[in-house]
Formats: sequence, C-alpha cells, structure tokens
Amino acid sequence: MTTYLPPVEDFQFILHDVLKLTESGLPGHDELDADFTAAILEAAGKISGEILAPLNAVGDREGCHLENGQVRTPKGFDKAFAAMKEGGWTALDCAPEYGGQGLPYIMGLAAGEMFVANNMAFNMYQGLTHGAYSAIAAHGTEDQKNTYLAKLASCDWTGTMNLTEAHAGTDLGLLRTKAEPQDDGSYLITGQKIFISAGDHDLAENIIHLVLAKAPGGGEGTRGISLFIVPKFLVNADGSLGERNAVSVGNIEEKMGIHGNATCVMNYDGAKGWLLGDLHKGMRAMFTMMNEARMGVGLQGYALAAGAYQKGLAYAKDRLQGRAVTGTENPSGPADPLIVHPDIRRSLMEQKSFVEGARALAAWGAHLIDRSHLADDQDAEGMISLLTPVIKGFLTDKGFDATVQAQQIFGGHGYIEETGISQYVRDARIAMIYEGANGVQALDLVGRKLASDGGKHVMAFFEMVKSFIKENEGDATLKADFLEPLKAASKDLQSAAMYFMQTGMKAPNAALAGSYDFMHLFGHVALGLMWSRMAATAQAKLAAGSDNPAFYETKLATGRFYMQRQLPVTATHLARIITGETSVMALDADRF
Amino acid sequence: MTTYLPPVEDFQFILHDVLKLTESGLPGHDELDADFTAAILEAAGKISGEILAPLNAVGDREGCHLENGQVRTPKGFDKAFAAMKEGGWTALDCAPEYGGQGLPYIMGLAAGEMFVANNMAFNMYQGLTHGAYSAIAAHGTEDQKNTYLAKLASCDWTGTMNLTEAHAGTDLGLLRTKAEPQDDGSYLITGQKIFISAGDHDLAENIIHLVLAKAPGGGEGTRGISLFIVPKFLVNADGSLGERNAVSVGNIEEKMGIHGNATCVMNYDGAKGWLLGDLHKGMRAMFTMMNEARMGVGLQGYALAAGAYQKGLAYAKDRLQGRAVTGTENPSGPADPLIVHPDIRRSLMEQKSFVEGARALAAWGAHLIDRSHLADDQDAEGMISLLTPVIKGFLTDKGFDATVQAQQIFGGHGYIEETGISQYVRDARIAMIYEGANGVQALDLVGRKLASDGGKHVMAFFEMVKSFIKENEGDATLKADFLEPLKAASKDLQSAAMYFMQTGMKAPNAALAGSYDFMHLFGHVALGLMWSRMAATAQAKLAAGSDNPAFYETKLATGRFYMQRQLPVTATHLARIITGETSVMALDADRF
Repeated sequence: MTTYLPPVEDFQFILHDVLKLTESGLPGHDELDADFTAAILEAAGKISGEILAPLNAVGDREGCHLENGQVRTPKGFDKAFAAMKEGGWTALDCAPEYGGQGLPYIMGLAAGEMFVANNMAFNMYQGLTHGAYSAIAAHGTEDQKNTYLAKLASCDWTGTMNLTEAHAGTDLGLLRTKAEPQDDGSYLITGQKIFISAGDHDLAENIIHLVLAKAPGGGEGTRGISLFIVPKFLVNADGSLGERNAVSVGNIEEKMGIHGNATCVMNYDGAKGWLLGDLHKGMRAMFTMMNEARMGVGLQGYALAAGAYQKGLAYAKDRLQGRAVTGTENPSGPADPLIVHPDIRRSLMEQKSFVEGARALAAWGAHLIDRSHLADDQDAEGMISLLTPVIKGFLTDKGFDATVQAQQIFGGHGYIEETGISQYVRDARIAMIYEGANGVQALDLVGRKLASDGGKHVMAFFEMVKSFIKENEGDATLKADFLEPLKAASKDLQSAAMYFMQTGMKAPNAALAGSYDFMHLFGHVALGLMWSRMAATAQAKLAAGSDNPAFYETKLATGRFYMQRQLPVTATHLARIITGETSVMALDADRF
Repeated sequence: MTTYLPPVEDFQFILHDVLKLTESGLPGHDELDADFTAAILEAAGKISGEILAPLNAVGDREGCHLENGQVRTPKGFDKAFAAMKEGGWTALDCAPEYGGQGLPYIMGLAAGEMFVANNMAFNMYQGLTHGAYSAIAAHGTEDQKNTYLAKLASCDWTGTMNLTEAHAGTDLGLLRTKAEPQDDGSYLITGQKIFISAGDHDLAENIIHLVLAKAPGGGEGTRGISLFIVPKFLVNADGSLGERNAVSVGNIEEKMGIHGNATCVMNYDGAKGWLLGDLHKGMRAMFTMMNEARMGVGLQGYALAAGAYQKGLAYAKDRLQGRAVTGTENPSGPADPLIVHPDIRRSLMEQKSFVEGARALAAWGAHLIDRSHLADDQDAEGMISLLTPVIKGFLTDKGFDATVQAQQIFGGHGYIEETGISQYVRDARIAMIYEGANGVQALDLVGRKLASDGGKHVMAFFEMVKSFIKENEGDATLKADFLEPLKAASKDLQSAAMYFMQTGMKAPNAALAGSYDFMHLFGHVALGLMWSRMAATAQAKLAAGSDNPAFYETKLATGRFYMQRQLPVTATHLARIITGETSVMALDADRF
C-alpha cells in the first residue's frame, strides 16, 4: 500500500546521540560507528520493505496448511526466508564461532523492528530460533552447542518453545508431558503441547523443539520440570539428519491473526529427547528463552505500532475529507487532507510519541542486555530484569492501542481487509497474550521484580531518574517541558511502590489488585525518562549548531506532546492503586 | 460455549426502580408493569440464547456470498429471521397502525441488547430496517407510509442507508451520486455507494434503500443533497412487487468482523427512486436515521461487551490455573479458578461496572427519546441530542476495550477462533467506526452539541448532577462513596466545558484538540451519574427491607468500584484538554 520508510535516522539518533554506543566501552562497540550502523539499518530496512512487506498480506490471507502431517507456509515465504538467511540477518548477534555476525543484541533489535513492522508472522520463524539458540548457548553441553548452534544461527534449522498444555498455561506446574530416561542417556518424551508457534513448517531442514516435561524424581509442580531438546529429525553423529522423531503436528489452530505462522498442537509419542541444562531445573533454563522472548514480544508490540502508524499517517496525508476549521489548506482540491484536523493529529501524535519513546526504551533495554552479557554488568542485568515485564506488558498493550488508532484513521476503509491495516490490529493482539499474558507480567513486576535483591533495582531506577533531573535542570526549557513532568510522574511511581511495600506483606491482594496499573505507571515513567533523555540530547545538538535542526526540533515537539498529554495519566494509575483491594475483591465469585 | 444469561433482573431494576417507567406519565407507560416487562425481557433473552447465539459463530465462519448478483446469508439465518418476525421482535416499538407492537423505544433497546450480545451481524438486518422505518415515518408522504411502513415493521422488506461513496465518507458534501427528475415525479439515481450494510441478502422479499444523491438545483456541498427511496423491486400500486430496479451489488467487502452481514458496494444505474422529505434537505431527513443509528451503535458497543463479559466470566470461573495468594480456595482441585486472582477480578470488575453503567445510560437515553417522541418533551430532546455522541463514542470505545479484556482472560485460548471470543473483539471494532467515526462524534459533541441552544442542554446536565447530589447528600455512605467522586468528576467536566467556551471561538483548534478527551470525560461523568442514581436506588431498596438484598448489595459494590477505580481518570482527561492545541498542532504535516 505504502512504501516502508525504515526509521534509520531515528535509530542513529538513539544509538549514537542518546546511548553513545561507541563510547560505552563494551567489547566490539568501538566498531559500531555511525556509518557502519547506518549501513546495517538501511540494508535491514531495504530487505524488510522489498521482501517482507509484500508477503504480509499474502501470509494473512493464505495462512498455513497441514498437508499429510507437514505444515506448508504461505506462497513466497520460502524464498524470502532464503534471502534472510543469505543476507546473514538470522545470525546478526550470534557468535562468530557458530557462523554469526557477532554484533551486539541492540543491532538485532533494530533490524528486528524493521522486520516485524512489515511482517510479524514471518519474523517469528527466526525469532523463535534465536531463542532456542540462546537457550542452548547458555545451558547446553559442548556437544549440544556443536550440534545445534551453527544450524540454528543460520536458520538451516529452526527452533520452537514447547511449554503450554491444554490445561497448563501460566500454571506450568500442572503440565503432564513425561520424560522417561533411557539407558543411552536420552529420554522418551510423551505428551501433548499446544499453541506451539512455528511448530512445523517447510522453511528449514530440521526443527529443534525445546520441550518442558516431567522426568521421574522431581518434586511436585514446577520443581519437577526439566527442559529437553527434541529434534524433528534425529541428528546423526556426523551432523547429518537421521530418522524422523516421534513428534507430529496434531492440528493447526484457526487464529485471529499471525496467520503466516502455524500455531500447532504438537504430539510427542515417545519422541527421543536430550536433557538441556540440569535435571529438574527446566524452568530456569526455559527462562533464558522466556526473558529473551519477552523482550522480543515487547519489540513486536511497538514495531507493529510503528508499521501501522506509517500506514495511518500516509492515509491521513492522502485522504481528502472536510476542511480545516481554521481555513482551507488545500484550496485547489475538493477537500483538505485528514491530517489538518486536530483530532487526527492528536491520534497521530499519540502514535508517534509512543512509537519513538518505545523504540528508545527497547533500545536501552537491549543495551542493558549487552552490558550484562558482554561486560557481566550485574547492575545492568538487575535493571533489565526489572524492566522486562514493563517492556513486554506496556509496549504490547500500548502498541495494540496504537494499531487500533491507526486503523481508526482509515474510517470504514480500516475495517475492510483490503487496506491491510486490520491485520496489524489482529496480529498485535497476540503480543499481549503470549510469552506470559500481560496480567502475568504485572504479577511478575509487582510480586517478584520490585522486591528482588531487596528492591535494589527499582531504587537504582529512581536514582537514575533523580540524577538525570539534577544534571539537567539548569536548562529552564528542559526543566519546564520535560523534567518537571518526569519528576511528578516518577513521584507517582515511588508512591505506588511505597504503597506496595507497606501493604504487600500483610495484604498481598492490595498490591496485586494494583499490579496492572503499576505496570502501566512504570511504563509511562520509563517512556517519560526516555523522552527526557532524548530531549536533552536534542537540545544539546541544537545548541551545538546541528546541520539537521528539523530532526531535533521535531524530536523535541514530539517529546513535549508525550510529557504534556500522556504522562499525566500516572496520577490516575496511582489513584487507582492506592484504593487497594477493597473494591476489586468486594464480590463473592457467585455475585459476578 | 456458555449458556446466555439474559440480564432480566438488571433491566427490571433500571426500568422500574431507577427510571420508574410506570410513574413517568408517558402514554402507554402505565401498562409497563414489572410482570409485563419481565415477560418481554425473558422472551427476548430466550430467543436470543436459543436461536441467535448458536448462529453467531456460523455467521462469522461462513460469511455472506455473492451468487449471480444475489447475496446469500449464512446457513440458518433465514429460519432465525423468520422466527424473529413471527415473534413480533422486529416491530416491537413500531406503530400498531403498521402492525407494530406499539411499545416504547426503551423496550426495543432492552431486547436489542440481548439480540446484539449473541449475534450482532444478524441483528443488523432488523436494526437498519428500523432506521428506514423511522425515516419514512418521520419524513414520508401518506402514500409512502402506506406503501412501506407495514412491510418494514414486519421485516418482510428490509432497509438500508446509502451515504458513503469511495471518496466521500464523513464529508458527504463530496458525494457524486446523481438524481435526475423524471416527468412522473420520480428520479433516476446513478452512482456508486460503498459500505452498505445488508445492501443485499436473501432474508426478505424486497430491500428499501434510502439513498443520498444530488438532484439538480441544489447548492454546493451538503446543501445539494436529497434523500431518495430506491426499492430493490419496484412496488406496484396494489403493493405487490414489480420489476427489478436498476440497483445491483458490485462486490462484498472482506472485513475484520460482522461477517454475517454483507457490506456491499451498490451500483445505481439509473435506478428509479422517490424523494423522501424535502428536496435538497436530504441531510436533515438522513439525520433521523443517523441519530437512531448512533443510539443503536452505542447499544452495540456495550451489548458486545456484555456478551463478551459473560464468556470471560464463565471462563474465569471454570479455568483452573495457579493458587490464590491468600490461600488455596479449591483444595480438592489441581489449582484454583482464575477468578481468585486479583488482576483477573480487576478486569472482570472493569467489564461488569462498565456494562451495567452503560446499560443504565443507554436505557436513560432511550427513555429520553420516548419522552421526546411521546410527550414532545423539548428538554428531553435537547438532552438526548447532547448525549447521543457520548453514547455512540464512549460506549463503543469502552465496549471494544471490554471485549479485549474479556478475550485477555482466555489467555492463548482467546486468540484462537474456536472459543468464539475473538469474534466479539472483531465485531465490536466496527462500532467505533460506522455511523460517524468516534472522532466525528467528539467533533459533533464539542463543535455543535455543547453550544447548541446557547449551551442550554449541557447546563441542564450539570444542573441535574448538582441537584441529584444535593437531594442525596444526607446519606453519609452515599455521599462518601458516590456523590463526592461524582462531584469531582463533574467539576472536571465543567472546567473542560468552560475552557472550550473561553478558547473555542478565538482558537477552535484548542477546543478540537481536546474533543476526544472531552467525549470520554463526559462519558465517565454520565456513567458516574448513572451509578450514583443506581446506588441511591439500591440504598433505598435495602433500607426498605428488600427481599433480594444480594442484588442491591452487589449493585452497590459494583458501583463503588466504578467510582473508585474508573472515575478518577476524568482528571487526566481535563489535564490533557487544557494543554490546548500547542503540542497537538506543533508539527508541520511533513515532519510526521
């Protein structure tokens, strides 16, 4: 419909002006100069716009089909997947020893946004494979690493995560899939998993399933769970493919969206599997994948918003309807473009300020992950551990809302599938659900992350906000437009955290009843912080006499919108939180 | 999936305890005693649950198909439509002289909620027909009334609204469809209309299209528009059907939802039409349909929320996952039901308190329409004219959000079509768009309704809130839990209205930039008022020693939730509104 405009300039600003990657001292980061990252970003934008975008509607319309037990992907996915592999895009941040490009995760995130923005269902194949790569890299034996990592990095083989069972979703302790130890050290896996994304397809020679199952001797609930590697085709000692394993697709689900990626019922009928990581410590190993997946899903949330926003914006500039109330702006045409109308602009500014703020937050999150991985930075690890549920929950909720707003700009044309915008809404919806529904993210944030290490990380977050304000409050404009609203919002967040600390132990429901609001409150403060950092950077650039003042002025104007119009909602979230559990828990279940 | 529980008790409470219909003095209302309305409500709930509910997923899956120029509806729709006609449900509030039941509109609304909650696409056939009935009843000649009204009341014939053209949606002044006057007083209509719901189908003998077109001699823009009656089959003088008119279906749109109702491209190729109402005054006549349609769409918004809520609630009670943090509540089961978790309850309470508040608001709106129609009550007409954009915009926005929340309770099971909840989200999405996109509702509210008759109606609304508070503040509990929050929210609304009055004339963009927030702010205050009225009623019932205290106590608890947790957002809306246009209009269009 529209030509995709990759956000290269915006990423360059984040990577170099805001995060100052080359000055970070992290291994390999000195090579990430502006020309180098621009080349990567432009190339990612190009392949995304030219190869992935045209397949988005194809995947949605055609979906995946089960033919004699084998899932067939939509027409053209195979060639596009080959092109992604050939370009090295599947292995951007994988280790060079396994054929990866060895770039930091943040570059993978940047490219990932561009891929997701044009074709989320397609990008899931490599996204899940990356998760399997990371889990095996972190927990595998040398042998396992040698067997699987290069193949996963190249996406010659792809990966899946097998957690959910029909009766066990969030509550994995209920799972029933069994692992029986064999004399040769392997296990026989028996059970049924559901909702397995990319559970089968025809894009790769082999599929490596990572499967949670219960092996004998573990405790009750989640303690008895182990993680197993279960390949679709067994792998011979020389790395060649052997016989077909006893894992099969039972069904493909009919879904609201992401039709280009088959969501499978997977049947394990005594399939051969190998333990990954320690016995009965499967949850820990799985969390390596889950945390990465949650960052990736947060990325999906805002990336789909970014893609939808571009489409809505193009429509708002093109569609002629009505006249500007302040005087005709398109006198030679039959009407003015939609974008002249204040309420359309409000909607566009909400989308734009969310997308750019979210992009900065996700990039900062990725940078924290790089700090943690490349420099063993414990503080960075603590911070990203705190921020992960916020990034997953807030960015997918708000990202979905933004796709709905973009759709709304199209009016009736947004409701028909022809314009393609409905697909963004339908695809974005899953991001609020999978990899831990957003209510579970809120629970994780309030019930676990907030108090972890004695509350050290949330304190560090508050300290960071405080010192940023202090460092910058000499600038009167910045102070009025950004630092004061940030201070007020951060104070709301602190009050809410304080309320939880005071009530959480004696009345846990009082904290949990406010958990969802807290996640959103935190998200707004995090975006407020990112906007303030971007604004300070933009101010400095302008003061130094930038040759691109329009970019920085636009950045400041967009940030001001966020601070003025979006951030004040923190007060409402706080007001809701401190009402505690009373009105939430007032009714007996049978009175609903 | 679940058995539908018609909200009979809740409607009885609204009709008799809150609105006190039989004491209203309106014609025919003395007959609406509790037994009589209960019988109607129960019968509507029964037919909805037994006949419409099973067809909902069928309609969604199967959709409508074009066969040799004729639209075929999904399997079973024909029999269900016949049953609805036979039961008199299509003519509930039509005039007895045309075969109607002669009940007030409020009873049609109550039945309508039940029909929409189980099958929105199906109910649109009769909903649009009712709109055509009303337009002809209000603007038709005696001859036209005699020709069409009885057939429309019975739904032997159905109706459509033809406004939109490809290039003319909100901006109807751009429309190109032409009407050429003929010597016999008829017109030949030529042009193409799009997005025509129920534009063709196989449920009725004839379809009466009401078509906006430009006849010679009118002015530019909307001034030149007239409204025409264009039947699919010409009607002979004796009322029998004559030849096929030159109107045909060009295409059926592929849509996100409401698949059971064909959205048609309609081609008028010199089709015979007859002027309805005055020449060049078509917009006025069309607004009779539009205002009714907007009420009906507001109804759809909350009715789908009501249906989705019931499904989400049933799932939350049934699905076992995790344990209550305050101690196991289902010790004999493998886990506790979802409803024990505070965040699930928060979501359910948000849905429940919205649905019940919205139901009361819509019912009050319907009662105002009855006052206006049956007693020529100008104040009631002014009030409903003010409230119509709020009911349409706020109830559909929040209704959609509620369906998304209900879907979220299902977790991954909500994303697959099998559980049926995704359909609610997809169907609900259109209600925010059609009959005037919600941004247009906000514009109508702020740009037109607020200042109409010198602001008389909004003043009357504030006065109503004020006197309600004054009358009831003697009750300390009511005062603390309901009246104080209502007073604060109403003050926010007044401040916003004041801001618009002060800035609107000299800086219209400053008002319009806040129009959407104002619509939501108004919606919350309106629901806050309805909750306060319901609470006062429930308190009085309990004080009088009701034999059904659980119902009234539940009502009070649900209302308290709304006042505590939802109403405080008015402060955020006000904060956003008074920032004016600066940050909204800051960017040039090419800087987006």
